Amino acid sequence: MALSDIKGAARNEQAIAAAVAVLRERFGDRFQTGEAIRAQHAHTTTYIPAQLPDGVVFAEAAGDVAETVKICAVHRVPVIPFGTGSSLEGQINAPAGGISIDFSRMNRVLEVNAEDLDCTVEPGITREELNTYLRDTGLFFPIDPGANASIGGMTSTRASGTNAVRYGTMKDNVLSVTAVTAKGEEIRTARRARKSSAGYDLTRLFVGAEGTLGVLTSVTLRLQGIPAMISGGVCSFPTLADACNAVIMTVQLGIPVARIELVNALQIRACNAYSGLTLPELPTLFVEFHGSEDSVRLQSEEFAHITAECGGGEFKWTADAAERAKLWKARHDAYWAAKALRPGHAVIATDVCVPISRLAECVAATEADIEEHGLLAPIVGHAGDGNFHVSLVLDDKNPADVEQAEAFVSRLNARALDMDGTCTGEHGIGQGKQAFLPLELGGAVDLMREIKRALDPDNILNPGKIFTMG
Amino acid sequence: MALSDIKGAARNEQAIAAAVAVLRERFGDRFQTGEAIRAQHAHTTTYIPAQLPDGVVFAEAAGDVAETVKICAVHRVPVIPFGTGSSLEGQINAPAGGISIDFSRMNRVLEVNAEDLDCTVEPGITREELNTYLRDTGLFFPIDPGANASIGGMTSTRASGTNAVRYGTMKDNVLSVTAVTAKGEEIRTARRARKSSAGYDLTRLFVGAEGTLGVLTSVTLRLQGIPAMISGGVCSFPTLADACNAVIMTVQLGIPVARIELVNALQIRACNAYSGLTLPELPTLFVEFHGSEDSVRLQSEEFAHITAECGGGEFKWTADAAERAKLWKARHDAYWAAKALRPGHAVIATDVCVPISRLAECVAATEADIEEHGLLAPIVGHAGDGNFHVSLVLDDKNPADVEQAEAFVSRLNARALDMDGTCTGEHGIGQGKQAFLPLELGGAVDLMREIKRALDPDNILNPGKIFTMG
Repeated sequence: MALSDIKGAARNEQAIAAAVAVLRERFGDRFQTGEAIRAQHAHTTTYIPAQLPDGVVFAEAAGDVAETVKICAVHRVPVIPFGTGSSLEGQINAPAGGISIDFSRMNRVLEVNAEDLDCTVEPGITREELNTYLRDTGLFFPIDPGANASIGGMTSTRASGTNAVRYGTMKDNVLSVTAVTAKGEEIRTARRARKSSAGYDLTRLFVGAEGTLGVLTSVTLRLQGIPAMISGGVCSFPTLADACNAVIMTVQLGIPVARIELVNALQIRACNAYSGLTLPELPTLFVEFHGSEDSVRLQSEEFAHITAECGGGEFKWTADAAERAKLWKARHDAYWAAKALRPGHAVIATDVCVPISRLAECVAATEADIEEHGLLAPIVGHAGDGNFHVSLVLDDKNPADVEQAEAFVSRLNARALDMDGTCTGEHGIGQGKQAFLPLELGGAVDLMREIKRALDPDNILNPGKIFTMG
Repeated sequence: MALSDIKGAARNEQAIAAAVAVLRERFGDRFQTGEAIRAQHAHTTTYIPAQLPDGVVFAEAAGDVAETVKICAVHRVPVIPFGTGSSLEGQINAPAGGISIDFSRMNRVLEVNAEDLDCTVEPGITREELNTYLRDTGLFFPIDPGANASIGGMTSTRASGTNAVRYGTMKDNVLSVTAVTAKGEEIRTARRARKSSAGYDLTRLFVGAEGTLGVLTSVTLRLQGIPAMISGGVCSFPTLADACNAVIMTVQLGIPVARIELVNALQIRACNAYSGLTLPELPTLFVEFHGSEDSVRLQSEEFAHITAECGGGEFKWTADAAERAKLWKARHDAYWAAKALRPGHAVIATDVCVPISRLAECVAATEADIEEHGLLAPIVGHAGDGNFHVSLVLDDKNPADVEQAEAFVSRLNARALDMDGTCTGEHGIGQGKQAFLPLELGGAVDLMREIKRALDPDNILNPGKIFTMG
């Protein structure tokens, strides 16, 4: 995690200049090299320093992507796919320079198959754009990582978010992708059937590969019917353990909760202040139920029994859209609420994921760590998955603050790994978490490298992400 | 699919003899070379001819597996993992000879984490053994491919079965595996967290790899709470299209049906005769609902509305265990019922999977094909997934019958591919479906081969399965 580990890699200036010349010739003003645009395409939402690409291709079709990759392959120049730039671990940086492919113009819905509950989209479409498009079909795409990320980016980081507990992560909701390989050839990983046993699961290999094995040109997604009713509510608990027990019972009883978010006392204080709520400053669960009117009522009642049994406060639920929206807006604004705790400061969002039986212990130990080191860092978690985020509020211009933050993230990851968890539930490895991957998976990382070497022998596809090649 | 395509590969007699000698020395009577035992380990349930291994190691621990692979790696001799031998496409054959690793003694439950709804098992345990073990915990492992297969085999073929519509396939229910690589090193693909974005999804790469990338030594599985209530029922429809429309509406409305099986008229006739039922000889759906008492009642009522709307007969549901068991036993005995249609004949079970919007069309065209060619072949389908099986009743000693069956399977696969489906929803490619994989996935198969070459350069891990290496 130490910034000193994120080095720029060797740049091949001659090759880059040659590729830039060819791309300029080929794409005209759809290829940009101005510093402002390049800087925009290396913008990260973390404290990882920006590493700018040498040019940006604004792709408009799969053919543009294939051509760009082919040109870069000839010159062995890196290719870095860019969706909206909302990734959190430096996934869009260009440590050895190279060409960013901007997908914002490849944001079409190519096909909706309503009866099959699927659609095929270009990678640049954002999840909000997609859901706006789908509204009249009665369907929606459920994965909600918070940011209005692109589908290509969400696929590449194996994103999930608040309702993964019910609908799964990108791994569960991508049926197939088309991608341009390192040779510039477009392949399709699977047909549109809901399941298949035909050969290796290349779809799942591309989901979460962070653009290191191929550049996505389309994604086929599973969709869900928009629930007839959505209800939601909050419930506070005397302790984290009580809240987590309620989560475990909910999951164990098979209540198909759509969202079950753990918000710690400090984050509640921040949300109260920022979003004008008056919740008790205690560990709190935000929940949401999806289904028919009867089903939602039933789920809410069953959940109320559980909270009572776990020592929770009164569970009030509402199907009123405005009231629900206010609540969830507060949850989604957790980042801004954290930031407002200390105006002018930056926030680093980091994530780990542990087996849910260890969630209470892991969060409590992390709260103690925060207290012990005098940090300011509220916590929110996708509790049904055992995944939680710490929002570290810090002065990112102050090296001592940054160093302290890095040390904290190291301890947090070590704690999650000790509990048989992972150093990232949904943000990916990128550049920021490379030190932890071998600690988590040992020799399996060698297999990953062998796969990378086989599919991208010249290491041109988003190099320096997930791991560096020897 | 043509049998002539399934060739024995070149055997390296000297290397095999050397490996056999070392294995005999190392494992004593846990290494067997008698013909009866070798034949048992190449037994296939299809008409694909048996290709015997040269010896069988009865592994008792992961260390035995690693040692066997290391010995075989030194001599470049094939290693073929063996669970229960219930795979359907020749996955356990030894076309170039080699060593079968029998996992029947590696059938322990290593760990159950009830709060996390997961467990870790050795690959040789069967799904029935696992569920017997789990019964007192209130949990169960839902995947049910029909056969009492081993968890290792189910993982390796990406198995699914009747309740995948609710619980997913092996891809969705394997959290992590440990496996011995071609070098004889044991790796672990993931930690026990419910989700992770840490690097390539090696877990999903091993699920469905048919033992060609590594030999599994343990599998960590997601479990489900045993539902408080299970109800089931049947409903007949005037046409296949009506039945399939009911399936589509059920899925679209998000009714969490646990099983929804399509049984065609001929299969109903076979089941009536074999299992003493008196169902109308019409396209029929067998359904099952899991949940709390209220939830199951609600689901059943919602489904009854759908069947009425789709022109179905009266939907009668029951929570009575004996009545339900009789019904599902009849469904599970479909293979035997098909076989009883023409005593003394063999049955070949083949499978394809299409987008569910095309299911009715695909099944109807297949029925017409069966009629046109004078075949006897009932159909059952996991309709919620668009997956269906044709049970070809034939005289497998008669070359003309076999040839006709092969031609039928070719047409069936071509039909499924034309509808953007897959040549196998759950049986895998093995030896039997290799001709169809490139038709389905084109250039993506080259990527699979590159991965295989990278992870198993000497092609010792279950060679000749999924594809042959150049």
